[in-house]
Amino acid sequence: MPQQRRAQVTRRTILVAAAEEFDREGYRATPLNAILRRGGVTKGAFYFHFASKEAVAQVLIRIQRERWTALFQRWVRSGLDPLSTAVGLVDEVVRLIDDDVVIRAGTALACRREAGGVPLDWERSLTELFAKAADGGQLRPDVDPRAAARVLHAALVGVRALGPGASAADRVAEIWRVLLRGVASADWLRSNP
Amino acid sequence: MPQQRRAQVTRRTILVAAAEEFDREGYRATPLNAILRRGGVTKGAFYFHFASKEAVAQVLIRIQRERWTALFQRWVRSGLDPLSTAVGLVDEVVRLIDDDVVIRAGTALACRREAGGVPLDWERSLTELFAKAADGGQLRPDVDPRAAARVLHAALVGVRALGPGASAADRVAEIWRVLLRGVASADWLRSNP
Repeated sequence: MPQQRRAQVTRRTILVAAAEEFDREGYRATPLNAILRRGGVTKGAFYFHFASKEAVAQVLIRIQRERWTALFQRWVRSGLDPLSTAVGLVDEVVRLIDDDVVIRAGTALACRREAGGVPLDWERSLTELFAKAADGGQLRPDVDPRAAARVLHAALVGVRALGPGASAADRVAEIWRVLLRGVASADWLRSNP
Repeated sequence: MPQQRRAQVTRRTILVAAAEEFDREGYRATPLNAILRRGGVTKGAFYFHFASKEAVAQVLIRIQRERWTALFQRWVRSGLDPLSTAVGLVDEVVRLIDDDVVIRAGTALACRREAGGVPLDWERSLTELFAKAADGGQLRPDVDPRAAARVLHAALVGVRALGPGASAADRVAEIWRVLLRGVASADWLRSNP
Protein backbone atom coordinates (compact mmCIF):
# COMPACT_ATOMS: atom_id res chain seq x y z
CA MET A 1 0.00 0.00 0.00
CA PRO A 2 1.52 3.35 -1.00
CA GLN A 3 2.33 5.59 1.93
CA GLN A 4 -0.24 8.26 1.18
CA ARG A 5 -3.04 5.73 0.91
CA ARG A 6 -1.93 4.12 4.21
CA ALA A 7 -2.02 7.52 5.90
CA GLN A 8 -5.58 8.08 4.66
CA VAL A 9 -6.64 4.71 6.04
CA THR A 10 -5.09 5.48 9.43
CA ARG A 11 -6.78 8.87 9.54
CA ARG A 12 -10.15 7.30 8.77
CA THR A 13 -9.51 4.55 11.35
CA ILE A 14 -8.90 7.19 14.01
CA LEU A 15 -12.06 9.10 13.06
CA VAL A 16 -14.21 5.97 13.22
CA ALA A 17 -12.63 4.79 16.49
CA ALA A 18 -13.18 8.21 18.06
CA ALA A 19 -16.75 8.34 16.77
CA GLU A 20 -17.47 4.91 18.25
CA GLU A 21 -16.03 5.84 21.64
CA PHE A 22 -17.79 9.23 21.74
CA ASP A 23 -21.03 7.50 20.73
CA ARG A 24 -20.75 4.91 23.51
CA GLU A 25 -19.16 6.83 26.34
CA GLY A 26 -19.60 10.49 25.49
CA TYR A 27 -16.95 12.94 24.37
CA ARG A 28 -15.82 14.09 27.79
CA ALA A 29 -15.67 10.60 29.29
CA THR A 30 -13.49 9.27 26.44
CA PRO A 31 -9.74 9.31 27.11
CA LEU A 32 -7.39 9.49 24.14
CA ASN A 33 -6.10 6.02 25.07
CA ALA A 34 -9.51 4.48 24.47
CA ILE A 35 -9.48 5.84 20.92
CA LEU A 36 -5.97 4.49 20.31
CA ARG A 37 -6.94 1.08 21.71
CA ARG A 38 -10.12 0.82 19.67
CA GLY A 39 -8.40 1.90 16.47
CA GLY A 40 -5.26 -0.18 17.09
CA VAL A 41 -3.28 2.98 16.44
CA THR A 42 -0.09 4.20 18.13
CA LYS A 43 0.17 7.57 19.83
CA GLY A 44 2.72 8.58 17.20
CA ALA A 45 0.36 7.76 14.35
CA PHE A 46 -2.44 9.64 16.09
CA TYR A 47 -0.39 12.81 16.55
CA PHE A 48 0.76 12.64 12.95
CA HIS A 49 -2.87 13.23 11.97
CA PHE A 50 -4.45 15.16 14.84
CA ALA A 51 -3.22 17.61 17.46
CA SER A 52 -5.60 16.38 20.15
CA LYS A 53 -8.85 14.56 20.97
CA GLU A 54 -10.58 17.90 20.45
CA ALA A 55 -9.13 18.18 16.94
CA VAL A 56 -10.66 14.79 16.03
CA ALA A 57 -14.00 15.93 17.42
CA GLN A 58 -13.80 19.11 15.33
CA VAL A 59 -13.30 17.07 12.17
CA LEU A 60 -16.31 14.89 13.08
CA ILE A 61 -18.35 18.06 13.54
CA ARG A 62 -17.22 19.37 10.17
CA ILE A 63 -18.01 16.08 8.41
CA GLN A 64 -21.60 15.98 9.71
CA ARG A 65 -22.15 19.65 8.87
CA GLU A 66 -20.98 19.16 5.28
CA ARG A 67 -23.01 15.98 4.94
CA TRP A 68 -26.25 17.52 6.24
CA THR A 69 -25.83 20.66 4.16
CA ALA A 70 -25.27 18.64 0.98
CA LEU A 71 -28.17 16.34 1.81
CA PHE A 72 -30.51 19.28 2.45
CA GLN A 73 -29.54 20.93 -0.85
CA ARG A 74 -29.98 17.68 -2.74
CA TRP A 75 -33.52 17.25 -1.39
CA VAL A 76 -34.46 20.88 -1.98
CA ARG A 77 -33.42 20.42 -5.62
CA SER A 78 -35.24 17.10 -5.92
CA GLY A 79 -38.17 18.61 -7.80
CA LEU A 80 -40.65 17.16 -5.30
CA ASP A 81 -43.24 19.40 -3.68
CA PRO A 82 -41.95 20.94 -0.41
CA LEU A 83 -43.95 18.62 1.86
CA SER A 84 -42.72 15.49 0.08
CA THR A 85 -39.23 16.99 0.17
CA ALA A 86 -39.49 17.34 3.95
CA VAL A 87 -40.65 13.73 4.28
CA GLY A 88 -37.79 12.40 2.14
CA LEU A 89 -35.20 14.61 3.81
CA VAL A 90 -36.19 13.66 7.35
CA ASP A 91 -36.32 9.96 6.53
CA GLU A 92 -32.84 10.05 5.06
CA VAL A 93 -31.50 12.03 8.03
CA VAL A 94 -32.94 9.50 10.46
CA ARG A 95 -31.58 6.55 8.50
CA LEU A 96 -28.12 8.09 8.22
CA ILE A 97 -27.98 8.85 11.95
CA ASP A 98 -28.90 5.26 12.69
CA ASP A 99 -26.47 3.73 10.22
CA ASP A 100 -23.37 5.93 10.25
CA VAL A 101 -21.52 6.29 13.54
CA VAL A 102 -19.28 9.08 12.20
CA ILE A 103 -22.30 11.21 11.30
CA ARG A 104 -24.11 10.26 14.53
CA ALA A 105 -21.14 11.15 16.76
CA GLY A 106 -20.46 14.40 14.90
CA THR A 107 -24.11 15.41 15.15
CA ALA A 108 -24.20 14.62 18.87
CA LEU A 109 -21.07 16.73 19.42
CA ALA A 110 -22.65 19.66 17.56
CA CYS A 111 -25.99 19.33 19.37
CA ARG A 112 -24.25 19.27 22.77
CA ARG A 113 -21.98 22.13 21.70
CA GLU A 114 -18.92 20.12 22.60
CA ALA A 115 -15.50 20.79 21.04
CA GLY A 116 -16.80 24.13 19.76
CA GLY A 117 -19.66 22.52 17.85
CA VAL A 118 -22.78 24.43 16.85
CA PRO A 119 -25.92 22.51 15.88
CA LEU A 120 -27.49 23.02 12.48
CA ASP A 121 -30.81 24.84 12.67
CA TRP A 122 -33.08 22.01 11.51
CA GLU A 123 -36.13 23.79 12.82
CA ARG A 124 -35.42 26.66 10.47
CA SER A 125 -34.82 24.36 7.48
CA LEU A 126 -38.08 22.53 8.18
CA THR A 127 -39.89 25.83 8.64
CA GLU A 128 -38.70 26.98 5.21
CA LEU A 129 -40.06 23.81 3.61
CA PHE A 130 -43.38 24.08 5.45
CA ALA A 131 -43.69 27.76 4.53
CA LYS A 132 -43.18 26.84 0.87
CA ALA A 133 -45.74 24.05 1.28
CA ALA A 134 -48.21 26.61 2.68
CA ASP A 135 -47.58 28.93 -0.29
CA GLY A 136 -48.11 26.01 -2.66
CA GLY A 137 -51.42 25.05 -1.06
CA GLN A 138 -50.12 21.76 0.33
CA LEU A 139 -51.05 22.72 3.89
CA ARG A 140 -54.51 23.34 5.23
CA PRO A 141 -55.15 27.08 5.13
CA ASP A 142 -55.66 27.24 8.92
CA VAL A 143 -52.26 25.67 9.71
CA ASP A 144 -49.36 27.84 10.85
CA PRO A 145 -46.37 26.38 8.94
CA ARG A 146 -43.94 27.42 11.67
CA ALA A 147 -46.00 25.64 14.31
CA ALA A 148 -46.16 22.49 12.18
CA ALA A 149 -42.38 22.58 11.66
CA ARG A 150 -41.78 23.11 15.39
CA VAL A 151 -44.03 20.21 16.38
CA LEU A 152 -42.33 17.95 13.84
CA HIS A 153 -38.90 19.01 15.05
CA ALA A 154 -39.82 18.47 18.72
CA ALA A 155 -41.23 15.01 17.98
CA LEU A 156 -38.07 14.03 16.07
CA VAL A 157 -35.83 15.27 18.87
CA GLY A 158 -38.05 13.43 21.36
CA VAL A 159 -37.74 10.14 19.50
CA ARG A 160 -33.95 10.56 19.63
CA ALA A 161 -34.00 11.51 23.32
CA LEU A 162 -36.21 8.54 24.21
CA GLY A 163 -33.53 6.38 22.67
CA PRO A 164 -33.72 2.75 21.72
CA GLY A 165 -36.94 0.80 21.70
CA ALA A 166 -38.93 0.59 18.51
CA SER A 167 -36.82 1.40 15.46
CA ALA A 168 -36.37 5.12 14.97
CA ALA A 169 -37.52 4.76 11.34
CA ASP A 170 -40.86 3.28 12.47
CA ARG A 171 -41.32 6.03 15.03
CA VAL A 172 -40.62 8.69 12.45
CA ALA A 173 -43.04 7.14 9.96
CA GLU A 174 -45.64 7.28 12.73
CA ILE A 175 -44.91 10.95 13.39
CA TRP A 176 -45.40 11.72 9.71
CA ARG A 177 -48.70 9.82 9.58
CA VAL A 178 -50.14 11.73 12.54
CA LEU A 179 -48.65 15.09 11.57
CA LEU A 180 -49.56 15.05 7.89
CA ARG A 181 -53.14 14.12 8.66
CA GLY A 182 -53.24 17.21 10.89
CA VAL A 183 -51.54 19.71 8.63
CA ALA A 184 -51.58 18.62 4.97
CA SER A 185 -54.29 19.77 2.60
CA ALA A 186 -56.93 17.25 1.46
CA ASP A 187 -55.47 17.51 -2.06
CA TRP A 188 -51.97 16.65 -0.93
CA LEU A 189 -53.21 13.74 1.18
CA ARG A 190 -55.19 12.40 -1.77
CA SER A 191 -52.14 12.42 -4.05
CA ASN A 192 -49.81 11.06 -1.32
CA PRO A 193 -51.74 8.23 0.26
CA MET B 1 -40.29 28.28 66.59
CA PRO B 2 -40.77 24.88 68.23
CA GLN B 3 -37.97 22.41 67.56
CA GLN B 4 -39.99 20.02 65.44
CA ARG B 5 -41.25 22.78 63.17
CA ARG B 6 -37.71 24.12 62.82
CA ALA B 7 -36.49 20.67 61.81
CA GLN B 8 -39.17 20.47 59.14
CA VAL B 9 -38.13 23.84 57.74
CA THR B 10 -34.47 22.79 57.63
CA ARG B 11 -35.36 19.53 55.87
CA ARG B 12 -37.40 21.43 53.26
CA THR B 13 -34.59 23.98 52.87
CA ILE B 14 -32.14 21.18 52.11
CA LEU B 15 -34.51 19.58 49.59
CA VAL B 16 -35.05 22.86 47.74
CA ALA B 17 -31.34 23.75 47.79
CA ALA B 18 -30.44 20.30 46.44
CA ALA B 19 -33.16 20.52 43.79
CA GLU B 20 -31.86 23.93 42.67
CA GLU B 21 -28.28 22.71 42.45
CA PHE B 22 -29.21 19.47 40.64
CA ASP B 23 -31.39 21.52 38.28
CA ARG B 24 -28.56 23.93 37.44
CA GLU B 25 -25.49 21.74 37.54
CA GLY B 26 -26.75 18.17 37.31
CA TYR B 27 -26.79 15.57 40.07
CA ARG B 28 -23.31 14.16 39.53
CA ALA B 29 -21.62 17.54 39.18
CA THR B 30 -23.14 18.84 42.45
CA PRO B 31 -20.91 18.47 45.51
CA LEU B 32 -22.56 18.26 48.92
CA ASN B 33 -20.90 21.55 49.84
CA ALA B 34 -22.79 23.39 47.11
CA ILE B 35 -26.08 22.22 48.62
CA LEU B 36 -24.99 23.32 52.12
CA ARG B 37 -23.87 26.71 50.80
CA ARG B 38 -27.05 27.32 48.84
CA GLY B 39 -29.27 26.26 51.75
CA GLY B 40 -27.20 28.04 54.39
CA VAL B 41 -27.18 24.77 56.30
CA THR B 42 -24.36 23.21 58.35
CA LYS B 43 -23.02 19.76 57.66
CA GLY B 44 -24.34 18.67 61.06
CA ALA B 45 -27.86 19.84 60.23
CA PHE B 46 -27.66 18.11 56.87
CA TYR B 47 -26.63 14.76 58.34
CA PHE B 48 -29.35 15.03 60.98
CA HIS B 49 -31.86 14.76 58.10
CA PHE B 50 -30.11 12.85 55.32
CA ALA B 51 -27.42 10.17 55.16
CA SER B 52 -25.95 11.46 51.89
CA LYS B 53 -26.47 13.48 48.73
CA GLU B 54 -27.95 10.34 47.24
CA ALA B 55 -30.50 10.11 50.06
CA VAL B 56 -31.72 13.66 49.26
CA ALA B 57 -32.00 12.72 45.60
CA GLN B 58 -34.04 9.65 46.52
CA VAL B 59 -36.51 11.80 48.45
CA LEU B 60 -36.82 14.17 45.46
CA ILE B 61 -37.54 11.16 43.27
CA ARG B 62 -40.20 9.93 45.70
CA ILE B 63 -41.84 13.36 45.92
CA GLN B 64 -42.22 13.66 42.13
CA ARG B 65 -43.50 10.11 41.80
CA GLU B 66 -46.19 10.68 44.44
CA ARG B 67 -47.13 14.02 42.95
CA TRP B 68 -47.46 12.70 39.39
CA THR B 69 -49.41 9.63 40.49
CA ALA B 70 -51.86 11.75 42.49
CA LEU B 71 -52.18 14.23 39.64
CA PHE B 72 -52.86 11.47 37.10
CA GLN B 73 -55.52 9.92 39.30
CA ARG B 74 -57.18 13.28 39.90
CA TRP B 75 -57.43 13.94 36.16
CA VAL B 76 -58.66 10.42 35.38
CA ARG B 77 -61.45 10.97 37.93
CA SER B 78 -62.24 14.44 36.57
CA GLY B 79 -65.31 13.27 34.68
CA LEU B 80 -64.00 14.79 31.43
CA ASP B 81 -63.82 12.69 28.28
CA PRO B 82 -60.46 10.90 27.95
CA LEU B 83 -59.08 13.25 25.29
CA SER B 84 -59.91 16.36 27.33
CA THR B 85 -58.45 14.56 30.35
CA ALA B 86 -55.17 14.05 28.47
CA VAL B 87 -55.09 17.72 27.46
CA GLY B 88 -55.70 18.90 31.03
CA LEU B 89 -53.26 16.43 32.53
CA VAL B 90 -50.41 17.27 30.15
CA ASP B 91 -50.93 21.00 30.59
CA GLU B 92 -50.77 20.71 34.37
CA VAL B 93 -47.67 18.49 34.18
CA VAL B 94 -45.88 20.99 31.95
CA ARG B 95 -46.84 23.92 34.17
CA LEU B 96 -45.72 22.12 37.32
CA ILE B 97 -42.37 21.15 35.79
CA ASP B 98 -41.81 24.77 34.82
CA ASP B 99 -42.88 26.22 38.16
CA ASP B 100 -41.68 23.78 40.83
CA VAL B 101 -37.96 23.12 41.03
CA VAL B 102 -38.42 20.23 43.48
CA ILE B 103 -40.70 18.39 41.05
CA ARG B 104 -38.51 19.34 38.09
CA ALA B 105 -35.29 18.09 39.72
CA GLY B 106 -36.93 14.89 40.98
CA THR B 107 -38.37 14.17 37.55
CA ALA B 108 -35.00 14.78 35.87
CA LEU B 109 -33.33 12.39 38.34
CA ALA B 110 -35.91 9.71 37.59
CA CYS B 111 -35.71 10.22 33.81
CA ARG B 112 -31.92 9.95 33.90
CA ARG B 113 -32.11 6.95 36.25
CA GLU B 114 -29.83 8.68 38.71
CA ALA B 115 -29.80 7.81 42.44
CA GLY B 116 -31.78 4.66 41.67
CA GLY B 117 -34.60 6.60 40.01
CA VAL B 118 -37.00 5.00 37.54
CA PRO B 119 -39.07 7.20 35.23
CA LEU B 120 -42.85 7.00 35.29
CA ASP B 121 -44.23 5.44 32.13
CA TRP B 122 -46.02 8.50 30.74
CA GLU B 123 -46.27 6.93 27.34
CA ARG B 124 -48.33 4.12 28.84
CA SER B 125 -50.58 6.50 30.78
CA LEU B 126 -51.20 8.57 27.65
CA THR B 127 -51.81 5.41 25.64
CA GLU B 128 -54.50 4.34 28.14
CA LEU B 129 -56.26 7.68 27.76
CA PHE B 130 -56.04 7.60 23.96
CA ALA B 131 -57.30 4.00 23.88
CA LYS B 132 -60.31 5.06 25.96
CA ALA B 133 -60.81 8.01 23.65
CA ALA B 134 -60.80 5.62 20.68
CA ASP B 135 -63.37 3.40 22.41
CA GLY B 136 -65.51 6.46 23.09
CA GLY B 137 -65.40 7.62 19.46
CA GLN B 138 -63.35 10.72 20.22
CA LEU B 139 -60.62 9.66 17.79
CA ARG B 140 -60.93 9.26 14.06
CA PRO B 141 -61.59 5.59 13.33
CA ASP B 142 -58.41 5.27 11.24
CA VAL B 143 -56.12 6.51 14.04
CA ASP B 144 -54.03 4.06 16.05
CA PRO B 145 -54.35 5.38 19.63
CA ARG B 146 -50.94 4.00 20.61
CA ALA B 147 -49.29 5.80 17.70
CA ALA B 148 -51.02 9.06 18.65
CA ALA B 149 -49.89 8.69 22.27
CA ARG B 150 -46.32 7.92 21.18
CA VAL B 151 -46.15 10.94 18.88
CA LEU B 152 -47.54 13.19 21.62
CA HIS B 153 -45.06 11.80 24.13
CA ALA B 154 -42.10 12.21 21.75
CA ALA B 155 -43.09 15.81 20.99
CA LEU B 156 -43.37 16.64 24.70
CA VAL B 157 -40.00 15.06 25.44
CA GLY B 158 -38.56 16.94 22.46
CA VAL B 159 -39.83 20.29 23.73
CA ARG B 160 -38.11 19.55 27.05
CA ALA B 161 -34.90 18.42 25.35
CA LEU B 162 -34.79 21.52 23.15
CA GLY B 163 -34.84 23.52 26.34
CA PRO B 164 -35.51 27.20 26.76
CA GLY B 165 -36.74 29.41 23.98
CA ALA B 166 -40.44 29.91 23.57
CA SER B 167 -42.37 29.13 26.74
CA ALA B 168 -42.93 25.41 27.16
CA ALA B 169 -46.65 26.06 27.70
CA ASP B 170 -46.95 27.75 24.28
CA ARG B 171 -45.04 24.93 22.62
CA VAL B 172 -47.30 22.35 24.23
CA ALA B 173 -50.45 24.20 23.19
CA GLU B 174 -49.07 24.14 19.66
CA ILE B 175 -48.45 20.39 19.84
CA TRP B 176 -52.05 19.85 20.94
CA ARG B 177 -53.41 22.00 18.12
CA VAL B 178 -51.51 20.06 15.47
CA LEU B 179 -52.03 16.65 17.05
CA LEU B 180 -55.73 16.97 17.82
CA ARG B 181 -56.49 18.13 14.31
CA GLY B 182 -54.78 14.97 13.09
CA VAL B 183 -56.32 12.44 15.47
CA ALA B 184 -59.53 13.73 17.09
CA SER B 185 -62.92 12.94 15.58
CA ALA B 186 -64.87 15.70 13.85
CA ASP B 187 -67.42 15.50 16.67
CA TRP B 188 -64.84 16.02 19.38
CA LEU B 189 -63.23 18.92 17.49
CA ARG B 190 -66.64 20.56 17.07
CA SER B 191 -67.39 20.40 20.80
CA ASN B 192 -63.81 21.43 21.78
CA PRO B 193 -62.99 24.32 19.49
